[in-house]
Amino acid sequence: MKQSTSLRVRLPTLVLVLEVVILALYAGFVTYDDNANAKLQNNETNPMDNSLYRDYPFFADVQVMIFIGFGCLLAFLRLYGFSGMVFNFLTATFAIQWAILVQGYFQFYSDGKIHLGVINLINAEFACAVVLISFGAVLGKTSPVQLLVMALLEVPVFSITEWVVLKYIKINDAGGSILIHLFAAYFGLAVTFVLYRPSLNDGHAKEITSYQSDILSVMGTLFLWVFWPSFNSALTFKGDDQHRAVLHTFIGLSSSTLTAFALSAALNKRGKLTMADVQNVTLAGGVTVGASVDMMISPAAAYALGVMGCTACMLGYRYLTPFLARRLRIQDQCGIHNLHGLTGFISSLAGICAILLASEETYGPSMYQIFAHRAPVEGDPKLLELQQLIPGLKPGLGRTAQEQALYQVAAIFFTIGLAILGGLFTGFVLKLPNLASPPDEYCFDDDLFFDVPSDFDSTGVPKAPICPADTKV
Amino acid sequence: MKQSTSLRVRLPTLVLVLEVVILALYAGFVTYDDNANAKLQNNETNPMDNSLYRDYPFFADVQVMIFIGFGCLLAFLRLYGFSGMVFNFLTATFAIQWAILVQGYFQFYSDGKIHLGVINLINAEFACAVVLISFGAVLGKTSPVQLLVMALLEVPVFSITEWVVLKYIKINDAGGSILIHLFAAYFGLAVTFVLYRPSLNDGHAKEITSYQSDILSVMGTLFLWVFWPSFNSALTFKGDDQHRAVLHTFIGLSSSTLTAFALSAALNKRGKLTMADVQNVTLAGGVTVGASVDMMISPAAAYALGVMGCTACMLGYRYLTPFLARRLRIQDQCGIHNLHGLTGFISSLAGICAILLASEETYGPSMYQIFAHRAPVEGDPKLLELQQLIPGLKPGLGRTAQEQALYQVAAIFFTIGLAILGGLFTGFVLKLPNLASPPDEYCFDDDLFFDVPSDFDSTGVPKAPICPADTKV
Amino acid sequence: MKQSTSLRVRLPTLVLVLEVVILALYAGFVTYDDNANAKLQNNETNPMDNSLYRDYPFFADVQVMIFIGFGCLLAFLRLYGFSGMVFNFLTATFAIQWAILVQGYFQFYSDGKIHLGVINLINAEFACAVVLISFGAVLGKTSPVQLLVMALLEVPVFSITEWVVLKYIKINDAGGSILIHLFAAYFGLAVTFVLYRPSLNDGHAKEITSYQSDILSVMGTLFLWVFWPSFNSALTFKGDDQHRAVLHTFIGLSSSTLTAFALSAALNKRGKLTMADVQNVTLAGGVTVGASVDMMISPAAAYALGVMGCTACMLGYRYLTPFLARRLRIQDQCGIHNLHGLTGFISSLAGICAILLASEETYGPSMYQIFAHRAPVEGDPKLLELQQLIPGLKPGLGRTAQEQALYQVAAIFFTIGLAILGGLFTGFVLKLPNLASPPDEYCFDDDLFFDVPSDFDSTGVPKAPICPADTKV
Repeated sequence: MKQSTSLRVRLPTLVLVLEVVILALYAGFVTYDDNANAKLQNNETNPMDNSLYRDYPFFADVQVMIFIGFGCLLAFLRLYGFSGMVFNFLTATFAIQWAILVQGYFQFYSDGKIHLGVINLINAEFACAVVLISFGAVLGKTSPVQLLVMALLEVPVFSITEWVVLKYIKINDAGGSILIHLFAAYFGLAVTFVLYRPSLNDGHAKEITSYQSDILSVMGTLFLWVFWPSFNSALTFKGDDQHRAVLHTFIGLSSSTLTAFALSAALNKRGKLTMADVQNVTLAGGVTVGASVDMMISPAAAYALGVMGCTACMLGYRYLTPFLARRLRIQDQCGIHNLHGLTGFISSLAGICAILLASEETYGPSMYQIFAHRAPVEGDPKLLELQQLIPGLKPGLGRTAQEQALYQVAAIFFTIGLAILGGLFTGFVLKLPNLASPPDEYCFDDDLFFDVPSDFDSTGVPKAPICPADTKV
Repeated sequence: MKQSTSLRVRLPTLVLVLEVVILALYAGFVTYDDNANAKLQNNETNPMDNSLYRDYPFFADVQVMIFIGFGCLLAFLRLYGFSGMVFNFLTATFAIQWAILVQGYFQFYSDGKIHLGVINLINAEFACAVVLISFGAVLGKTSPVQLLVMALLEVPVFSITEWVVLKYIKINDAGGSILIHLFAAYFGLAVTFVLYRPSLNDGHAKEITSYQSDILSVMGTLFLWVFWPSFNSALTFKGDDQHRAVLHTFIGLSSSTLTAFALSAALNKRGKLTMADVQNVTLAGGVTVGASVDMMISPAAAYALGVMGCTACMLGYRYLTPFLARRLRIQDQCGIHNLHGLTGFISSLAGICAILLASEETYGPSMYQIFAHRAPVEGDPKLLELQQLIPGLKPGLGRTAQEQALYQVAAIFFTIGLAILGGLFTGFVLKLPNLASPPDEYCFDDDLFFDVPSDFDSTGVPKAPICPADTKV
Repeated sequence: MKQSTSLRVRLPTLVLVLEVVILALYAGFVTYDDNANAKLQNNETNPMDNSLYRDYPFFADVQVMIFIGFGCLLAFLRLYGFSGMVFNFLTATFAIQWAILVQGYFQFYSDGKIHLGVINLINAEFACAVVLISFGAVLGKTSPVQLLVMALLEVPVFSITEWVVLKYIKINDAGGSILIHLFAAYFGLAVTFVLYRPSLNDGHAKEITSYQSDILSVMGTLFLWVFWPSFNSALTFKGDDQHRAVLHTFIGLSSSTLTAFALSAALNKRGKLTMADVQNVTLAGGVTVGASVDMMISPAAAYALGVMGCTACMLGYRYLTPFLARRLRIQDQCGIHNLHGLTGFISSLAGICAILLASEETYGPSMYQIFAHRAPVEGDPKLLELQQLIPGLKPGLGRTAQEQALYQVAAIFFTIGLAILGGLFTGFVLKLPNLASPPDEYCFDDDLFFDVPSDFDSTGVPKAPICPADTKV
């Protein structure tokens, strides 16, 4: 049994296959986009107008979130710090290079080629964030081989969902509350449902934190917190839209954090703060403002959304997560349903309200830019009129606010549906033999997949009495 | 006694009240500034000219300093890492959302509304930095309830001081040496003077570091060090002024760091380096260049200021801090008087020298932009002449260099005066009952306000002989 | 013997001398560059066109790499975390302020002054990176005094090499594979060759990691990983060149990381992952794409380079480093020859291939901008023609691709030659008495140069039986 978790053949074989396929596809289909192609520069090109300077700062911020923020946050277990941080690194790296291809095919494909620029990398990082959120549901119970397979399957399911929603359903979701957070949460729940381990339902001896791992995890939270405004605003329109997205995300996180401290103390029997709340619940506001993050919802609404999202998330951790584990066989290790699912719902509802309340009185003519699908259709005289006021406004679908709201609802159902189907399928694939799935007793234990330093045991769970001599007496 | 430190009712009650008040004020008075308001965009708006792109990079850097830099730096105690990092998170979050309102009222208020953009957030972060510096004086001796109350009181006192100094006294202080560092230091000293605990004067058994906490704290220092140029330059004029602010801050920190290592070894009896010096004294140069950071002081002067500030700071830690604690009942936990007070004075003096030495020969006509109050008054023909050379130059007060220097001195006294008064008042409020003030024996102990993991004791102070059997002999 | 390692007189004396010299040179020779000089601003200056806004974001990213990335990465030893992180801080700080002067003399000198802007700081950080890479070869075996002396000597040797290569040999090496990585690797190897310690060849009891130090070191890796695209692109042309540099670096790192995991498992007898591989080998791709990072090599080529560099680096760690230590007396502590030397060679070769394959068909006329030395000479009618297409194209040397390739080869030999000579000389200087060189038994031990907290021993190597009483039985 123990032998079957060796990575010596499994991991290199899988990676070799993946790399050969990816390299072949890159060679065959990936070229530079116009902003990265030397040949397309001419005497009218101003180098400082290159899209790099608009996109790279946001890309770099999201990089820090993905690799350092998530990495530290997921290293919160005492005996699973290596795995949390390092499997995050591995999974994220693969997910991004794979998403460049899959999203590229759906969104950046023309003339037989995927055109690559930093903007593709930002999109790929969002696909990667989806995988990492889902990873939170199965943390400690999966091998790196399983995680690569999960990324391999989740990225295409996500990309198809994204493509259908953006291209056919056409919604407003600047911060990705529907596409990223709801999708990731339900995909992850479906995977962990299939991977159900009865023996873990009463807790696991190694499922504990240490003083250092708790601090490390808070550092991860802080990196996510600090750069979340960049995440939520990376794909909005430039200018005032992006400006609002930054403001709303900051305010939502801020009120969410304050609320999390209050609720943590209130729900603790001894009136103390719980580090798991500081690590997770403080972030709820960032998700909750997502769907309406670029709209004119007012700073007060962003504040209220942060408080509401945080409250839902906190109650979810206290009451819903145990219920899901005991009754529905859904073992949600990091509570992603609370931080991404419940908050995603609130955010989606808020987005729908904001859509229904939007008016030219508040937004001026740029309403038809933010709510692009409400813009008049091609040929409508109103379109020409608006294009006088907003140069470059693209023709829309002439939807009413009510129609747009219904499409949002449709997108929510469609996204969750595909996420659950994809997650169930992925879960079954992960149960295939030879993927080095950890045995129950080695869950949450770095020793299974890592050469650990000599002080590893000493930081661990006492397995035997400290003074064995005593037992002889 | 122990019961009275439970946060279960106190913290949620306070937070609930604060959140209701803040939400009401946001709803009633906070709207978007012109750069974040969709309605004000028209066919002449270039999205990339939005102020977001000038302000956000500096905002993000200061965010890292506030939440990660300060957070890690304040986690330097062995048994107080949770509290140092997490109370910093809580206090900073509240201080910023509160400062948005208070500073907004004084500085960004028009037409009955506070107009909100990223620039307000930068200003609010500076107010937040003030609170966090003062927090350093009382670290380990205060509950989160007390810290919120302190932020609640300090932000308005600071904002009023700032408003009077900027609007009426009108000074040059780009890096905030007077307004931020001197204010924060003396406010904090006044608070800790009132909160004097005689039993702590001979040290506290828990006031120790650990190997990991020292490393974590150095990480905080490094984040502050790396992004300090953004802090000192965030509110200067754009262009060459901001460029000089970056250069001077870097050079000042650099010479300060080198000096700190030399003095640390020289003042250590065994010729070894002391981690507390690496964590704190290296940063002195960032404060010392503050008041003249955007002026043409020359790179060499920035270098010299770094050396001077570092030396004063180091000597302060060795000789002044113990003296203040023993003789003046001022227990300055993190030595903020050395890092922010003494260096703030040197910086202020250097600023005055730079003002007195400034000439059109060195600065050209843009002298009247940097030293805005020396610009000719409205109607002066010289103003029109200068406006030919510097389009958009605003009329000033026609002050001479000597007059400006006297106003700087006035601002120093006014700032310190209000800081001390505000700090004394805040100290008395913090002594009110029911604020969960920690008992002496639980100072510097995470166990008081946190659910701690099971390895917490093992990293702690030995409370009993390791071999109790021996005592029976 | 132990007395001779006290820093009490040595370090302050050296620092005092250095600071006096540097301050005098700054005062005499350093002034502001045009973008930081108030006097040169006039009514045609647009502040937002200041070079600060092009350079500062990249400068800040590289700062994080130097101080936090390297600092954490070098703190990977259990008993040498203080030293790794703090000596990195000290050495980097001094190296940059010294490089500002030395590089300034060679590259930014005119009218008897060194002209200082943020661009100089970026260049100085590259010189600093060279010193820190070389530091990796002698980590644990050198005092801070020796490290300052090493920086004092290495910066000028590097600056002269850089000046000759850029000014006379004239090569393409945007990511610094030749100038930075090959130079640093061979300089460091030469130094450690001279500092050979026979007793360390069979390992050292203190040369071990701990659970926390391994995690800290991975964090350093992640910071380097995330910001490496900024490093490799900081000094390219703006626009599409910089855009490609970002893309290639990201792709190269990405494929390199995936490969590193596969090889780590494959080469481990028990099929587990090794943290040292995660910490180091994942980064190989960043170096390997360096020399051709701004060229039109195609994303697939960047991917392949990452895989190749990683493989060479990994095999180097397993087979070459032990060989060098045993047979050639070269004790390469951090394996810099693998991460910077071998990969530097592959990168250089790839650069030469890319030069030979470059054609106007692929690059369009901007080929003569990227490969500046292939541009027609002054007076050539083709130059005028090209300048119509690329305004501001500077006259070149009219080199053919083959000629340029030969110059690249010449630069490689010249760089390695000077690096080895400079390294040998530096090594001999470091062996001079009174530089506080650590005795063998105190290598890799923070206790030698730091006041350590009381838990330091407990995290250390057991030196004696835990129950000494037993030995009496």
